[in-house]
Amino acid sequence: MTDKIDIKEKVLSENDRMAESLRQRFAGKTLCLNLVSSPGSGKTSLLEKTIPALEKELKMALVAGDVQTENDANRLIAAGGKAVRPIVTKGACHLDARMVETALDGLPVENADVLFIENVGNLVCPSSYDLGEDAKVVIISVTEGDDKPLKYPGMFRRSSLMIINKIDLLAHCEFDMAKVRQNALQINGNLDIFETSCRTGQGLDHWYNWLRQKSASKKKGQS
Amino acid sequence: MTDKIDIKEKVLSENDRMAESLRQRFAGKTLCLNLVSSPGSGKTSLLEKTIPALEKELKMALVAGDVQTENDANRLIAAGGKAVRPIVTKGACHLDARMVETALDGLPVENADVLFIENVGNLVCPSSYDLGEDAKVVIISVTEGDDKPLKYPGMFRRSSLMIINKIDLLAHCEFDMAKVRQNALQINGNLDIFETSCRTGQGLDHWYNWLRQKSASKKKGQS
Repeated sequence: MTDKIDIKEKVLSENDRMAESLRQRFAGKTLCLNLVSSPGSGKTSLLEKTIPALEKELKMALVAGDVQTENDANRLIAAGGKAVRPIVTKGACHLDARMVETALDGLPVENADVLFIENVGNLVCPSSYDLGEDAKVVIISVTEGDDKPLKYPGMFRRSSLMIINKIDLLAHCEFDMAKVRQNALQINGNLDIFETSCRTGQGLDHWYNWLRQKSASKKKGQS
Repeated sequence: MTDKIDIKEKVLSENDRMAESLRQRFAGKTLCLNLVSSPGSGKTSLLEKTIPALEKELKMALVAGDVQTENDANRLIAAGGKAVRPIVTKGACHLDARMVETALDGLPVENADVLFIENVGNLVCPSSYDLGEDAKVVIISVTEGDDKPLKYPGMFRRSSLMIINKIDLLAHCEFDMAKVRQNALQINGNLDIFETSCRTGQGLDHWYNWLRQKSASKKKGQS
């Protein structure tokens, strides 16, 4: 087990160096967000809404990771995404900084106001890999249950914003909104929290305003 | 990267030996099922229904894995589970055979007809770890999207049964039942498939009959 831990630390440390180099590259201009969630919580749906809503205000670059298929990247292109790259991890359970750097090759990311990195759908492993992001955005859907922040604390501890998605299904689920907020804030008292439905559009304005504000702060060197 | 792969192979090979020893222990008597899914798809809910429905027919032992909290094990005890053990992985993204063996200590598993192992909610990593089970049962919910078998093929390839849960929400989701079946069978042509709602009870009889039949086959040495 010692060997396993040593190797894991070595890999993480290499990842941290690469992530730091990405962070330097984006300094003062490109807001970099790492979107994480369970499979099917709505990462791609959120971006499909965001692209047309903000395309006149913000230049967006997008990287979409999946274990297999380029489906998500294709959905983002169909939604109007102009600078989109897929990453197929071929079995790996998370993106790492090297995969992101490779995917950025040829992408006009230096001109982008925001780089969205859509991670593999997994509430555990992606929490350990810094991708050079300014913030992790964790998305949960109301169909998953209000206990998720307590059961997967690492991800919620390392995120800056929690988006509670699929609120159009609230009436059909046993999901206590007050409880999920309390559970999340117990893990991370600094978490911003928005409620959205990518299906109906409800609540998305909070997210768009958050993006505008974070992008502006990034350019002022405040994030 | 070579070091990383070597270590991973060593860990998996140790796991395989331990899993084989568990398999010998259960031979000819205890049907062992490894329940896998995304977070919040309904593994615990399925077991909460199964315990009271079959407690007069089948002796059940249950092991519930989570990254953090013993919530699931407590729910199984509240549902009437008499032989229940939690495994808190403290950050690890999957159960391994050693964790299961440790959790079984003191559990009357030798008398059990069925051992349910509820894995960590994760559609990627648990697919690589044999726990000595007769079958993996993968649960997806209709809120997750019909593309999941294509995007997480490893898990669906290694499972024997796919349960499509939360069908009470079908009218409120864009989920194509014919497509998810086609996608799953494209990955694994031998997959049994049932549709259920743990909330309304719809379709659970198929699952109960499958359990009865697999348990009977196990005792005849046919699985």
